[in-house]
Amino acid sequence: MNKQNAAPYFGRRGLIFVLSSPSGAGKTTISRELLRLDENLVMSVSTTTRPMRAGETEGADYNFVDEAHFERMTEDGAFLEHAQVFGYHYGTPRAPVEAALQAGTDVLFDIDWQGTQQLATDEKMGADLVSVFILPPSTKELESRLNSRARDPEEVVRERMAKASGEMSHFPEYTYIIVNDDIDQSVDRVQAILDAERLRMSRQVGLHEFVQGLRGVD
Amino acid sequence: MNKQNAAPYFGRRGLIFVLSSPSGAGKTTISRELLRLDENLVMSVSTTTRPMRAGETEGADYNFVDEAHFERMTEDGAFLEHAQVFGYHYGTPRAPVEAALQAGTDVLFDIDWQGTQQLATDEKMGADLVSVFILPPSTKELESRLNSRARDPEEVVRERMAKASGEMSHFPEYTYIIVNDDIDQSVDRVQAILDAERLRMSRQVGLHEFVQGLRGVD
Repeated sequence: MNKQNAAPYFGRRGLIFVLSSPSGAGKTTISRELLRLDENLVMSVSTTTRPMRAGETEGADYNFVDEAHFERMTEDGAFLEHAQVFGYHYGTPRAPVEAALQAGTDVLFDIDWQGTQQLATDEKMGADLVSVFILPPSTKELESRLNSRARDPEEVVRERMAKASGEMSHFPEYTYIIVNDDIDQSVDRVQAILDAERLRMSRQVGLHEFVQGLRGVD
Repeated sequence: MNKQNAAPYFGRRGLIFVLSSPSGAGKTTISRELLRLDENLVMSVSTTTRPMRAGETEGADYNFVDEAHFERMTEDGAFLEHAQVFGYHYGTPRAPVEAALQAGTDVLFDIDWQGTQQLATDEKMGADLVSVFILPPSTKELESRLNSRARDPEEVVRERMAKASGEMSHFPEYTYIIVNDDIDQSVDRVQAILDAERLRMSRQVGLHEFVQGLRGVD
């Protein structure tokens, strides 16, 4: 399928494309492939109070800010969604996302069910949201993927499984569900969802004028 | 993309896939390609009171019935949608469509806005409906396609243009809009819509049990 999906005849408002999954379901690989293949999709960059890690770049991986700064942004309503994980704050700034959507660029969000709920109930952005939940093909596969990520004590793995279970319990809040038992197929499926959602009547700006023109009506 | 889209883990209810367009927009070619490429899609066969034409097959092109039979079926509520065109009746029998959907097979409908409205407001089938409207890229292109179909008097072409204009005025009633300026691209787009709609959470039967299993909950 062609990359620039918007018809040349009229514009299109971008969409918020959320991928959620328990860790170990393959979401990171799928996101990376999607960003590589699709020229009209950009990753949303979060703001965080977590310290920068080796290899991370300010503005590309995260916008790193201090507690006071984050709090001020929260009070100003500058975040589309925000959450606290292991004592650190993470949030998605509203302004760059709104600018991208207006320019017809789609924005990929790698967030959990809590962030997705905040987006879905956002008065301004709710209509732009397309949400996909990625499931592992089996408990065995999930366990083995969680185990192979690091040689952690059994207790840590059990904790991760509990977290995965909690995340998965929210699957009905998503519009699309993909079972990831083949990574290439899953990338194709996520791409098909993105392509289809771009063709929604409600997202195509200027359609009315275009059809009036076709009908010879001024 | 693979043909058998339903995950092997659980079933899926089929969907009603409606393609509408003014004549001359390329819908027939797109439908034919889609049916050729997609193994899980079948064409809905209409019932009609129109006489059989040379080359047509009973049960494949249409179910041919007489007026009294058609009227009885209408009274019995046997039609999902029906209309009268140039003095002949056309209708889609409900029973074979319901059987296909229950078996997880998708059914392609080549109908106009009047039929689509009847499907959309059908209490039982409305939720199964996915509708796509195909637009020509320009008035000039539409005119030339209508002209090239037969060497008809100018008046007949004008009449067809008026009919096309009336049909196009209903585009906002459709979920997806495609501008057909490249037949291969349009087939890809229609296929992406079909693939995506198959992945909707609400269409996947048994998801709840599958996720309960993943979570280790009985």
